[in-house]
Amino acid sequence: MNVGIIPHTEKPAAISLAEELIEFFLERQIQVCFEEETAQILGVPQLARQIPLKELDVVIVLGGDGALLNAARLTSQVDVPVLGVNVGHLGFLTELEVDGVFPAMEKLISGDYYIEERMLIEGRVIRKGKQVAVCSALNDLVMTRGTFARIINISTYIDDQHVTDYVADGIIVSTPTGSTAYSLSAGGPIIEPLLECICITPICPHSLSSRSVLARPTASVSLHLGETREEVMLTIDGQQGFPLKSGDRVEIRRADKTAKFVKLSGRAFFEILHSRLKMPQVWGGAHEG
Amino acid sequence: MNVGIIPHTEKPAAISLAEELIEFFLERQIQVCFEEETAQILGVPQLARQIPLKELDVVIVLGGDGALLNAARLTSQVDVPVLGVNVGHLGFLTELEVDGVFPAMEKLISGDYYIEERMLIEGRVIRKGKQVAVCSALNDLVMTRGTFARIINISTYIDDQHVTDYVADGIIVSTPTGSTAYSLSAGGPIIEPLLECICITPICPHSLSSRSVLARPTASVSLHLGETREEVMLTIDGQQGFPLKSGDRVEIRRADKTAKFVKLSGRAFFEILHSRLKMPQVWGGAHEG
Amino acid sequence: MNVGIIPHTEKPAAISLAEELIEFFLERQIQVCFEEETAQILGVPQLARQIPLKELDVVIVLGGDGALLNAARLTSQVDVPVLGVNVGHLGFLTELEVDGVFPAMEKLISGDYYIEERMLIEGRVIRKGKQVAVCSALNDLVMTRGTFARIINISTYIDDQHVTDYVADGIIVSTPTGSTAYSLSAGGPIIEPLLECICITPICPHSLSSRSVLARPTASVSLHLGETREEVMLTIDGQQGFPLKSGDRVEIRRADKTAKFVKLSGRAFFEILHSRLKMPQVWGGAHEG
Amino acid sequence: MNVGIIPHTEKPAAISLAEELIEFFLERQIQVCFEEETAQILGVPQLARQIPLKELDVVIVLGGDGALLNAARLTSQVDVPVLGVNVGHLGFLTELEVDGVFPAMEKLISGDYYIEERMLIEGRVIRKGKQVAVCSALNDLVMTRGTFARIINISTYIDDQHVTDYVADGIIVSTPTGSTAYSLSAGGPIIEPLLECICITPICPHSLSSRSVLARPTASVSLHLGETREEVMLTIDGQQGFPLKSGDRVEIRRADKTAKFVKLSGRAFFEILHSRLKMPQVWGGAHEG
Repeated sequence: MNVGIIPHTEKPAAISLAEELIEFFLERQIQVCFEEETAQILGVPQLARQIPLKELDVVIVLGGDGALLNAARLTSQVDVPVLGVNVGHLGFLTELEVDGVFPAMEKLISGDYYIEERMLIEGRVIRKGKQVAVCSALNDLVMTRGTFARIINISTYIDDQHVTDYVADGIIVSTPTGSTAYSLSAGGPIIEPLLECICITPICPHSLSSRSVLARPTASVSLHLGETREEVMLTIDGQQGFPLKSGDRVEIRRADKTAKFVKLSGRAFFEILHSRLKMPQVWGGAHEG
Repeated sequence: MNVGIIPHTEKPAAISLAEELIEFFLERQIQVCFEEETAQILGVPQLARQIPLKELDVVIVLGGDGALLNAARLTSQVDVPVLGVNVGHLGFLTELEVDGVFPAMEKLISGDYYIEERMLIEGRVIRKGKQVAVCSALNDLVMTRGTFARIINISTYIDDQHVTDYVADGIIVSTPTGSTAYSLSAGGPIIEPLLECICITPICPHSLSSRSVLARPTASVSLHLGETREEVMLTIDGQQGFPLKSGDRVEIRRADKTAKFVKLSGRAFFEILHSRLKMPQVWGGAHEG
Repeated sequence: MNVGIIPHTEKPAAISLAEELIEFFLERQIQVCFEEETAQILGVPQLARQIPLKELDVVIVLGGDGALLNAARLTSQVDVPVLGVNVGHLGFLTELEVDGVFPAMEKLISGDYYIEERMLIEGRVIRKGKQVAVCSALNDLVMTRGTFARIINISTYIDDQHVTDYVADGIIVSTPTGSTAYSLSAGGPIIEPLLECICITPICPHSLSSRSVLARPTASVSLHLGETREEVMLTIDGQQGFPLKSGDRVEIRRADKTAKFVKLSGRAFFEILHSRLKMPQVWGGAHEG
Repeated sequence: MNVGIIPHTEKPAAISLAEELIEFFLERQIQVCFEEETAQILGVPQLARQIPLKELDVVIVLGGDGALLNAARLTSQVDVPVLGVNVGHLGFLTELEVDGVFPAMEKLISGDYYIEERMLIEGRVIRKGKQVAVCSALNDLVMTRGTFARIINISTYIDDQHVTDYVADGIIVSTPTGSTAYSLSAGGPIIEPLLECICITPICPHSLSSRSVLARPTASVSLHLGETREEVMLTIDGQQGFPLKSGDRVEIRRADKTAKFVKLSGRAFFEILHSRLKMPQVWGGAHEG
């Protein structure tokens, strides 16, 4: 068994957990490897990436949802599953808390887990008929104006059907996984992770019609950026960005690859949602008498 | 070919169209039949239901979406498709306008159409462990308080996972078809008809957490009505009602049968949506300069 | 000093607190009186309403927000202040918890309190040119369809300016006090109690345009009920109802009288809001890294 | 009478209208003046700002709402009223269309108009105890994250009462005038221009509690920016920006000065709203039958 570990190197708790995990796995004759820079920080240069990514059996991420998103986009390309250990705030995607790590690792080693697959979306930026960028996202692809830009115009199509022309701060195209991230802030619905679909939600639309549109997972969503003199960006999972120009078209579909998450804890989606959203906070009122 | 026709008997335009259709079909040696009462009104008692419903090839509804919903729930039980001719306001479900009826009927006869299947949901009311009612809906099943009732408490489960406890005026469980009906009024998203799923939306929740939850089409949604001294109803497609009591449980799943709609016009979903919702109405503001 | 007490007679805690308060006030030579029926229940028939309502210095309500609303509408007519002691759930309007009642009563007796005035709205139902009902509300006046009624049409005017025609389940016209009651459930904003204004919020509008409209406190709001064969009600603070007919007009303005609340605890509005709404429940996500 | 004219110099229609207005006013012995640069463009260098701003009787803006906002902020400091002629899209603030300009100017000259005053808000940025910037806005002051910044934390106070801690893309503090601008896009209510108040609306909050809060016009609203390594801006009417740092506090109150608008057309607020928002677009559904 080969294990990759990606600790959040700015979090001391992640570093010390990584050190304990090295010991844990090596005692059990399991190969462990790190990215070059991380291996230096941990003082284990001999464990720097000696195994190709695609030959790993699992990548363990010690950090938050953001770090896990980064890793999952990468490992999804080579079909390697990820396992997130939450070091910090409770996350939607991280599977384990620091407390329960070692018993969980025993279960991992003994194969007592299953894999949950989550769909990714893939975006292609088309400029003057040519593809100038391609990217994939586990949460969302967001077309958004810069801080000082005015509103932008985005014509939206699903499978060549015209959905609507948004005049807005931007537009979020999200996966079910991303429904509890930025899309939720912008007013989108909560989507069960295993209901495959594509969710389109405008950000602060200059229209009173601001509902999300849910499309089939096989739909092709096309965003046409109108004439603009402003800074407009395509952001990927809120982490990377690609600057867009007037007339650019972003074509979005389900990716061929999926992200694979190791499930060990038995925590179900709505249980996680409850503890994250603390929904619902009920109030009373006159009706209560 | 056997054709059933259900005209909205209070609309003169529907009555006169029915008369023209009798002539049209009889000239072409096609059997036409009506419900008993309608046949009387039309003065064609010989055409009263002489063919069993399940032997009809199509049921043509002359009316609005409401009449079509009623017919579709019925014919879905025997796998007979429906075709709606809009007599009145533009609908989401009616396929034809009065203007284009006869050319469309020629296409129908020559088989130049396809069938679009829409999922139905089925609800079972469980009282003290026994099933006391069963019903199916094409748009939605709604648990709602009476006019003078206070708010009601509804614990919601998906596949035995606790979603949340709503304190609200009610809760809407809708199909994709129903996403543009009551669910939309209550803040729900717009769902492509062919994305099979179940959408749960609270009505005026006494909580600031009022987002819709989207579940897989295979999910089992369970609504547990809390203790109440009030009048509470389960309504089916906004048309029929069943009174509920404290402690009742409504179990909702996708029905085995689907509703089948004859598609002739080529009008696509977002085209219909545009003309119905006139979305989006954009406004400008200071940003425009 | 003359004190009226209104305990929620179905709550044992309210009954026993009432008994303790009788003793407390009588020891201090303060006159106490009750409504006839309550005096019977408490076994103090000699304390049954021997003082006219308008000669009371304060009415103490032992119950929830609902009971307090009822009392406040009544006492506002004769300028008598109310003081709510919360017996049950934490309320928006009740000033005291059972725990701190007696020290607070000492402050009340010694005049160590102030009065907060809250605006009321007054509604007049006009049918065929004649006024057929008049009512006042501290929270809201709501025009709403019955359980089985279809949507209703309501043309809305502010000072004879046409605002819009709502097609909806109903419409809420609320005071600032009512902004945290039904209006909040229907999507309305939170309004500081001392910002006098009138807030109009549709319930489940059949339109994507569902924003609240805020009018000046001196505005005259007019709701014209369209043609309907359905049951439509005007409800007052969610507690009383008046059946409406097609063509009825409800004229709503600020009432001349205000409701007067005794303030002793120093609890500020946003503090109460926090504890009631537990706002905000923040979630994180990928952005957190 | 002294008239200042500010045409949108990139709009040919504004330029030619300015030329016609020069002729119109000079014929009537009315002094006209322009900003330096504009006078050059128009080829009337002799009309360049020979009159001090505060001695003007009115400033006529030929452009859109944005240009009018800019002018109104400026002229409000010296109590000079503005009059907007809409060159382009229909605006909320511009009073006249190009079509009716000359008859309206006759009314202006003859004094046949009134002045509508709109409240402004004033913001002061406090950094480490010192005021580092002051600004005033007619629509809104917005604290917002940069394109690539993560969410920001903003603690909000009204008159030293803690309202809530927002984790969001930003927060909008708007006047009633601004309620139909950015605030409306972010979910805020529609506020009658003459109901003086301050409206606080979060942008994409990471919380399900996203309601606007309405405060008294005399309230002092304080936004405390939490620890951040990101780019955060304070924007004024969506047009100017001031970069903020961790720990900055923005104190917002009603400004002493008001913006003064010349009213000639008799167009009422809800009439303008109707034509801008085209509210409501009603849809039907099964309920219609």
